[in-house]
Amino acid sequence: MKAEIISVGSELTSGQNLDTNSQWLSQRLAEIGIAVGWHTTVADDLEDNVAAFRIAAERADLVLITGGLGPTQDDLTREALAQMAGVELVFHAPSFEHIQQLFARRHRAMPDRNRVQAMFPAGSEPIPNPHGTAPGIWMNVRPGVSGEWLVMSGPEQESGDRSQGSMKNWLTPDSRPLTPDGSPLITHHSLLVAMPGVPSEMFAMFEKQVRPRLVAMGFSGGVVVQRKINCFGAGESAIEEKLMDLTRRGQSPEVGITASDATISLRILARANTAEEAKAQIEPVEKTIRERLGSFVFGADEEELQDAVIAILKARRQTVATAESVTAGLVARRLGLVPGASACLLGGVVAYDARIKVELLDVPPSLIEEHGVISAPVVEAMAVGCRSRLGADFAISTVGLAGPGGGSSDKPVGLAFAGLAWDGGVRSQSFNWLGTREEIQSRTAKMALNLLRLHLLTK
Amino acid sequence: MKAEIISVGSELTSGQNLDTNSQWLSQRLAEIGIAVGWHTTVADDLEDNVAAFRIAAERADLVLITGGLGPTQDDLTREALAQMAGVELVFHAPSFEHIQQLFARRHRAMPDRNRVQAMFPAGSEPIPNPHGTAPGIWMNVRPGVSGEWLVMSGPEQESGDRSQGSMKNWLTPDSRPLTPDGSPLITHHSLLVAMPGVPSEMFAMFEKQVRPRLVAMGFSGGVVVQRKINCFGAGESAIEEKLMDLTRRGQSPEVGITASDATISLRILARANTAEEAKAQIEPVEKTIRERLGSFVFGADEEELQDAVIAILKARRQTVATAESVTAGLVARRLGLVPGASACLLGGVVAYDARIKVELLDVPPSLIEEHGVISAPVVEAMAVGCRSRLGADFAISTVGLAGPGGGSSDKPVGLAFAGLAWDGGVRSQSFNWLGTREEIQSRTAKMALNLLRLHLLTK
Repeated sequence: MKAEIISVGSELTSGQNLDTNSQWLSQRLAEIGIAVGWHTTVADDLEDNVAAFRIAAERADLVLITGGLGPTQDDLTREALAQMAGVELVFHAPSFEHIQQLFARRHRAMPDRNRVQAMFPAGSEPIPNPHGTAPGIWMNVRPGVSGEWLVMSGPEQESGDRSQGSMKNWLTPDSRPLTPDGSPLITHHSLLVAMPGVPSEMFAMFEKQVRPRLVAMGFSGGVVVQRKINCFGAGESAIEEKLMDLTRRGQSPEVGITASDATISLRILARANTAEEAKAQIEPVEKTIRERLGSFVFGADEEELQDAVIAILKARRQTVATAESVTAGLVARRLGLVPGASACLLGGVVAYDARIKVELLDVPPSLIEEHGVISAPVVEAMAVGCRSRLGADFAISTVGLAGPGGGSSDKPVGLAFAGLAWDGGVRSQSFNWLGTREEIQSRTAKMALNLLRLHLLTK
Repeated sequence: MKAEIISVGSELTSGQNLDTNSQWLSQRLAEIGIAVGWHTTVADDLEDNVAAFRIAAERADLVLITGGLGPTQDDLTREALAQMAGVELVFHAPSFEHIQQLFARRHRAMPDRNRVQAMFPAGSEPIPNPHGTAPGIWMNVRPGVSGEWLVMSGPEQESGDRSQGSMKNWLTPDSRPLTPDGSPLITHHSLLVAMPGVPSEMFAMFEKQVRPRLVAMGFSGGVVVQRKINCFGAGESAIEEKLMDLTRRGQSPEVGITASDATISLRILARANTAEEAKAQIEPVEKTIRERLGSFVFGADEEELQDAVIAILKARRQTVATAESVTAGLVARRLGLVPGASACLLGGVVAYDARIKVELLDVPPSLIEEHGVISAPVVEAMAVGCRSRLGADFAISTVGLAGPGGGSSDKPVGLAFAGLAWDGGVRSQSFNWLGTREEIQSRTAKMALNLLRLHLLTK
C-alpha cells in the first residue's frame, strides 16, 4: 500500500510559493499508517497534469491531489481527471447550489465562471467543501484492457442522473467502499482524491471527510503517534551518545534526533493498531530518555524554554526581570510570547549602550573599564542591578558580540555571557556561539532562559 | 526547454522534513529563464528512484536531483543513475583523495563506507564539492533504439581511464558542452545533474558550478529579474487599488502583491535577454509604484522597517530608545537585529507590569487610573519618560492587549497603541489588530517603528 501526493500549480513549480500541503498530508497519512512513496508537483498544463495522474495511478494505490479546483482557466484538475479516464465533465446540482449560497451569504453576485466548479468527471463523486467554492473529487480508477484508465462507478453514482443528484450522492464518512460488490480494495486499482489547494480548506476536507473514509475503507495500516522531547544545554552528538541504543535504525519505537537553533529534540515515533497501544510503546522510551538526560530536558512537543520558565515561576508565584545587551530585548520578548506571562514577567531593561548599563542598571563604570562589557563581572552586575531596580525575585542578563563586525582574537564574534541574580546570589555562564548575528542573539537568549530554568529546578 | 527537479529522501516523503531545495532551485532556474514543469520527491527506494529518473528524462530536458549522495545504505542516487543507463559504478581517484583530505583536515579517520562517494556511473562526470564529502554527478543521456537510456560520454570522459583520472576530468565552469561535436544540445537528450541534499552544499555547487555551465551550454532562455517594494501602513486592497493597471494579469513586467504580517509587498518581475534589459523594464514601474504609494513604501527587496529606521537615524547621527509593554522587547529586538544598530539604539525599558511604567518611565499613576494602561495618554507618557530617562533623541513606546484572554467590548484583544516622543513633542497612533498573540505583538512593533520612520521622513 503506497500513496502519492500531487500538488498542482505553476506558482509552485516556478518557486514563487513553497508547497507545504504535501508535507502536511504525508504527516497525516503517516498517522494512519499509510506510507507515501512520492510527492509530485506539476505546473498548470493540461497534458502534463493528465500524464502525472496516469503515472501516479500506475505506481500508487492512493493518490491525493491538491490544487487546480478553482474557477479560473488555470484550474485544470477537473478536466485532467476526466481526460485521464476518458470521460466527460458532468454537472452536479447540489454542488452548484452550495456555490451559489456561498456567494449569496457574502452578498456578492456569482461570476459565471464559478459554474465550472460544479462540474465533475462522470462516475466520480463530489466531496463537499463547507469552507469554500471548490468541492473535492473522489474517483476510483482501474486499468482497462489496453492500458487506459476506467472510472469505477460506485452504486451511488449509478443510481441516477447526477445532474438531478441529491445530497445522498454526497460523500459521508460512513459511506461504503466504492467497489461494486463491497469486496476489499484490489491493490492495482487506484483511488484519486482531489482537494482544494488553499491549506485551510484542504485541511478541513481531509480531516473531516477524506481521512475517516480512508480508515473506514481499510486503507489505514494502523496509527502512528509521535512525541517530541526537547533539550537544551548540550550538543547533538553529546545527547545522542547517551541514547545510542535507542536511536539505532530499525528500533521500535523509532527515536530520531534533530537540532534547531541549539535546541536538541528527540522524536519518538510508534506504530500500532490503536493510539493507546502506540502511547504505551512511547511511555517507557520517554521515561528512559528523561532519566538519562535529566535536566537537559525542558519540555515536550511544542514547548519552548520560555514556556518551562513561566510555568515554574507561575507555580511558585515568583517574578522575573531582564537586563539585555546583546539580545536587545529578545529574552523579554520570548517570555512575553507565553500567554499569561504578565503574572511573572515584570519587565526589563535593554541596555544596549554602555551608559544605559551604568545609569539604569547601576553597573559600576570601573567594572566596565577593567573587564570590558563582554565579561562575567559585567553581566552579573547587570543582573544584580536589574533585580534590585525592578524589584523582581530573579533577573537574567546578557552581553555578547553578535557581529558581523567587531571581533578580536581575545573576544571573538559569538562570545556571549548570560547572568542570573536571585535572593542571595548571582552567577553567570558563557559560550562561544558559531552562527549569524541572529543565531548568536537567539542562542544567547536561550542560554539566559536556561540558566534561570536550571536554577529553579534545584532551588 | 523544460526542467524537472527531483528530491530524494524518505524523510521528505514521510513528511518529517520539508523540502525547500526544490523551491530554491526553481527560483534560480527562473532567473536564467528555464521553466520548471515538475517537482518530484521520491523515497529512498532503488527501484522507485530508477523509475523516477527515467520518467523525468523522458519529459524534461534538464533534471536537477538533490539528495541520496551520502555514504549510507539509504543513499541510492549514484546507483539509481547507473541502473537507469545500464552502466556500472566506477571509481574516481581525485574524488576519493578529496574525501580523504576532508577527514584528515578534521583529524578524523575516514570510515570505509565513505569510499562509495567516489564511485560514479561510467561515462558521467564528477562535480567537486569543496564543502562536503558528496561530489555531484553530471550525466547526459539519450534514448537508445529500444527505449533504454544511454550515457553520452563527452570527450573528457573518453580520453582516459576514469579510475586513473586527474583534475582535468573535473567539472569547471568553462568546460565545453558534452555533445561530442560541440553542436547545440538536442532537445530529446536529457541532462541529469545530481547534487547533495544538504542545502548549503547544494547552493554552493549550483551557484559556482552548475549554473555557469548551464548558461554556457545555452540552456538559459534569457534572464528574469525580480524587485520587491515593501510597504506598511495600509491594507492589501487599499494598496492594490492604487495599482490596478499594473497588477492586471498578462502585463510585462508582471506586478504581484502579497501580504505578510501586515507588510504589503509588490513584486515586479521582468523577463529579458540580459539583466540590464530586465532592470530597464523594472525601473519605470518601480518609479510609478513609489510615486503612487509615497511614504507607504519603506524599502526594497529584503529590507525591513527596522533597516529603514536605523539607516535614517545613522545618517542623521541620532539615537532611539524604546518603552515597551505589549511587545515586551520586540521593538528593541528588531532594531538590534540590524548590523551596526549600536550606533543609534541606546536601549530601552520593557515595562510589562504597570508598576515598572511608573517607576522606570515616570508615568503618573493618576494617568493609568484615569485612562487605563491601554490608552493614548499612557503610551505617550511612556515615550516621554523613556526619552528623558535614557537621553535619546527619540523614544517609541507600545501598549496593547495581545490576548488570548482579557479582552472587553471597550478594550478588545488586538487593541494596541504606539507612541513617539521627540525633542518638542509627542504623538500616538492606535490600531485594532486581528490575529494571534504573536501577530498582534509583531504588528504593534511594526506600527511603532513606522511611527518613527514617518516622523523622520517629514522632520
